[in-house]
Order: sequence, then structure tokens, then C-alpha cells
Amino acid sequence: MKKSVFYHAGCPVCISAEHDIINLIGAENVDIIHLGESKDEISEAEKAGVQSVPALVTPNGNVLHINFGASIEDVKK
Amino acid sequence: MKKSVFYHAGCPVCISAEHDIINLIGAENVDIIHLGESKDEISEAEKAGVQSVPALVTPNGNVLHINFGASIEDVKK
Repeated sequence: MKKSVFYHAGCPVCISAEHDIINLIGAENVDIIHLGESKDEISEAEKAGVQSVPALVTPNGNVLHINFGASIEDVKK
Repeated sequence: MKKSVFYHAGCPVCISAEHDIINLIGAENVDIIHLGESKDEISEAEKAGVQSVPALVTPNGNVLHINFGASIEDVKK
């Protein structure tokens, strides 16, 4: 199965959601990307349709925005 | 494993998220509850901390609010 991608920015909401997602779908099925530390990934996240973090991009390309933590604009700062 | 519970209200955002969640964690791992059709479940959802739908309550009791569709107040109407 193609992996999901979980984008976050290190905020408490993000970390909590990250643990939940890993418990639910398994660490081996999801790539975790910290946009605060990997700012070069932000444009890729935006292209995928990510508007806020935490967000999960599913293998078929849908974006699930989870428990609003921070807007993608805030992550750019 | 204890099941997750996915609460929704039949809105397009909900249905799309439902399909994604089922693909990700498997239909056998999640109970789907339509709050528009099962209004007696609304108080239970509120007790679990659900503030909007679609939302996924994980086996350990955390609530993941996904892609805002409708507030729980709107579902009561």
C-alpha cells in the first residue's frame, strides 16, 4: 500500500494527533514530516492541498485536516 | 483492539472522510454512527468530546476532528 503522509509542525495538538494516527494506521504506513524543521517541504504540502497542520494526506491524495493546530501560513514564519 | 467510532452527519465532507478512514484503518476497526439518523447518540458523542463532525474517537478516547463539516449544535436541529 502506498504510504500516507502526516504533516505537522511540532505543536502539542500535532504531537497528540501524530500518536493517534500511528496507533490507528501503524507507523509503517505513514511518513511523518515536521514542516517546522523541514521548511523545504512546505511547498509540497501546499501542492497536496494541506491548509493547516496537523494533516494527513491519504494514499489516494485526499487531505484530512485534523484538530486545527496551525495554519500553513503560520508554519512559514 | 477496541474499535474507533466515526461520527458523521451525512454531509459530503463526512462521506468523503468516512471512505478515507475506512481505507486507512479498515471497516472492521471502526463503528460508523450517523448522528443525523441516530439523534439519540448525540449526547454520547458530546460526552466523548465531539464538537463537530466528521470526528473519529480513537480506542483510547481521543477525539480527532476531521475536515470541519458541521458543528454538533447544527446536527441537533
